[in-house]
Amino acid sequence: VPGPLITLTTDFGAGSAYVAQVKGVLLSALPTARLVDVTHELPAHDIAAAEVCLRGTAFSFPLGTTHLVVVDPGVGTARRALAVQARGMTFVGPDNGVLGVALAQPGARVVNLDRPELFRHPVASTFHGRDLFAPVAAELAAGLDLDQVGQSITDAQPSTLPPARFDVDSASGEVLAADRFGNLTTNLGVGELERCFGDWQASVDGRPLRRCATYGDADRGDLVVLAGSDGYLEVAVREGSAAEHLGRVRGVPVQCRGSGA
Amino acid sequence: VPGPLITLTTDFGAGSAYVAQVKGVLLSALPTARLVDVTHELPAHDIAAAEVCLRGTAFSFPLGTTHLVVVDPGVGTARRALAVQARGMTFVGPDNGVLGVALAQPGARVVNLDRPELFRHPVASTFHGRDLFAPVAAELAAGLDLDQVGQSITDAQPSTLPPARFDVDSASGEVLAADRFGNLTTNLGVGELERCFGDWQASVDGRPLRRCATYGDADRGDLVVLAGSDGYLEVAVREGSAAEHLGRVRGVPVQCRGSGA
Amino acid sequence: VPGPLITLTTDFGAGSAYVAQVKGVLLSALPTARLVDVTHELPAHDIAAAEVCLRGTAFSFPLGTTHLVVVDPGVGTARRALAVQARGMTFVGPDNGVLGVALAQPGARVVNLDRPELFRHPVASTFHGRDLFAPVAAELAAGLDLDQVGQSITDAQPSTLPPARFDVDSASGEVLAADRFGNLTTNLGVGELERCFGDWQASVDGRPLRRCATYGDADRGDLVVLAGSDGYLEVAVREGSAAEHLGRVRGVPVQCRGSGA
Repeated sequence: VPGPLITLTTDFGAGSAYVAQVKGVLLSALPTARLVDVTHELPAHDIAAAEVCLRGTAFSFPLGTTHLVVVDPGVGTARRALAVQARGMTFVGPDNGVLGVALAQPGARVVNLDRPELFRHPVASTFHGRDLFAPVAAELAAGLDLDQVGQSITDAQPSTLPPARFDVDSASGEVLAADRFGNLTTNLGVGELERCFGDWQASVDGRPLRRCATYGDADRGDLVVLAGSDGYLEVAVREGSAAEHLGRVRGVPVQCRGSGA
Repeated sequence: VPGPLITLTTDFGAGSAYVAQVKGVLLSALPTARLVDVTHELPAHDIAAAEVCLRGTAFSFPLGTTHLVVVDPGVGTARRALAVQARGMTFVGPDNGVLGVALAQPGARVVNLDRPELFRHPVASTFHGRDLFAPVAAELAAGLDLDQVGQSITDAQPSTLPPARFDVDSASGEVLAADRFGNLTTNLGVGELERCFGDWQASVDGRPLRRCATYGDADRGDLVVLAGSDGYLEVAVREGSAAEHLGRVRGVPVQCRGSGA
Repeated sequence: VPGPLITLTTDFGAGSAYVAQVKGVLLSALPTARLVDVTHELPAHDIAAAEVCLRGTAFSFPLGTTHLVVVDPGVGTARRALAVQARGMTFVGPDNGVLGVALAQPGARVVNLDRPELFRHPVASTFHGRDLFAPVAAELAAGLDLDQVGQSITDAQPSTLPPARFDVDSASGEVLAADRFGNLTTNLGVGELERCFGDWQASVDGRPLRRCATYGDADRGDLVVLAGSDGYLEVAVREGSAAEHLGRVRGVPVQCRGSGA
């Protein structure tokens, strides 16, 4: 039987010595662990970017996976450290919103990582990823119960992502992030749009846009919307960059109006 | 016995959430799979770069390895999806030339991935890497036969790389790509040059260049040619960048003239 | 029991085809090997950067790990190839100082890799990482003794890093490298500073700086020193970049003066 899966999502930078140290600690604590890099290229200290990444990736992994998420501008301050269990997955990271996607799942359980005997000592006050989060993640991946790593809490910091607003006949959201191709993801769930409005039309930054099924259906250079592969409305340009086309990314307003009845 | 090896070669960008999703799907379908990143840093939509990468790396891996290659500008259009078996390796990717290196091997077998029951549903029309190629790659790595994943075809899209031309006493080729050091690889196989001409002399962009055995044999700053580690003629500058020296990369003409008889 | 761990530290560039070839060779020679990327993003030919990276990462890994380190500007010249055993770890790399951290450990054993029968043939004179270091690293990870891969030597190239100087009441060192956040690491060990001086005060580039326990203790924008997570004095700016603040990195002088008696 293959060893426990632990994924890593950080802003340490690809090829950072910090990532290697975290891996060394994980493998020292749990030699059978199988490590998967989600990304280390998140913009430094960008909690929202980490949330968007986690939203798109966490639930593709097998049940039982442990997701270690370290974007931690408040390292060494009084911010708490969390473990969350939701939808058969375990999440470990700082209490700064970065685990918001996990916390928002129905039935999510949350504990405050308040058992120093589980940490790696001395705990470097600048590197909880290595000395606090990694050892606890290894213990949880090895089978420790959530109750054994900390006290249950109910006031964890929720997602920092702006929520979409759904009204009777329209929904308002915004662009959250761009991928390397310049495609833009938003906070508007395609399933929810369909449930609420049946059919609908989108405008981005005030401009009505065509809906396409895939990039190939768009005309070259046209800005279009489509159902993104992560289940959220996506803004794209065929063989081009929607991010460049719009000149900015985060916060670009997106409106969807039901075209039924 | 260690689990099946699956390598990943894409233009998704290092640290892309798309890569993580593909890995999650592979590990969900085949928990014993061992994943190796070849690269995710190919220039976006650059089929030729993917081919050069695959040419240099695929056959270093153990027999039985499955190579998943996703550079797929036509995702969601009518382009077919392929699996190829050649030289004891399996290749999975779009029918756009990206698997040209595999197709060119003697005895290569090719099928069109036309069995939707093997895909992950719903298939996102913008992300066949996750929903079509990854599940099929996992099945093939798990032991499914090529015949079980699609219908045999003979008209797959061949390599997009320009071929070298070999004449009686000379060969003409060109630069295909640069590595991070600025060393340039070409389409002129060193083995074939030796077989055809015994000894030979090279000129690059019209300038005759010295042949060296290794970088250390060159004078600092001199542009030289040598046998690249991938078996193709390489253009290099000792402790410098041939790419910068020439001011461009792809398409720089390279001529080799037999210096025997 | 999980397979042998082999880490990879190179300047090949993330997503380089060279890295994939090395991995292919390692996995072909030792199918049970578990590979961990430390970094492939070291600046090209930067031996000192590799040393700083190795210093911070090597000893986080489990005992028995094999560290393959290839920053090798002299590839193909007469520079020797080494394997070193120290503190329960094995290191393999060129004899150019890159293994200086391993060599400096008490009781380190060193051999010259002079057994061509262990190499992958033909040995590309430009790619000893793949054809010489990787096969030997695989053999050592598989259990071969150091004596079986080469002749013992005592004149290996030591570290290229500038040593700190400790005097009776002060120590002089310098900045060695920056991380992606712009935090600067130095050659002044915090443990040694405490042993020598008890309490002490630091100045960087001639300016006395405040000592903090963690980033959060600093005022925003202030340049401070703190104990780095790798055990060395670190220069940092809270929510900012010390590298940008100082305008340079390597060689910035750092002085510590005992403030006791």
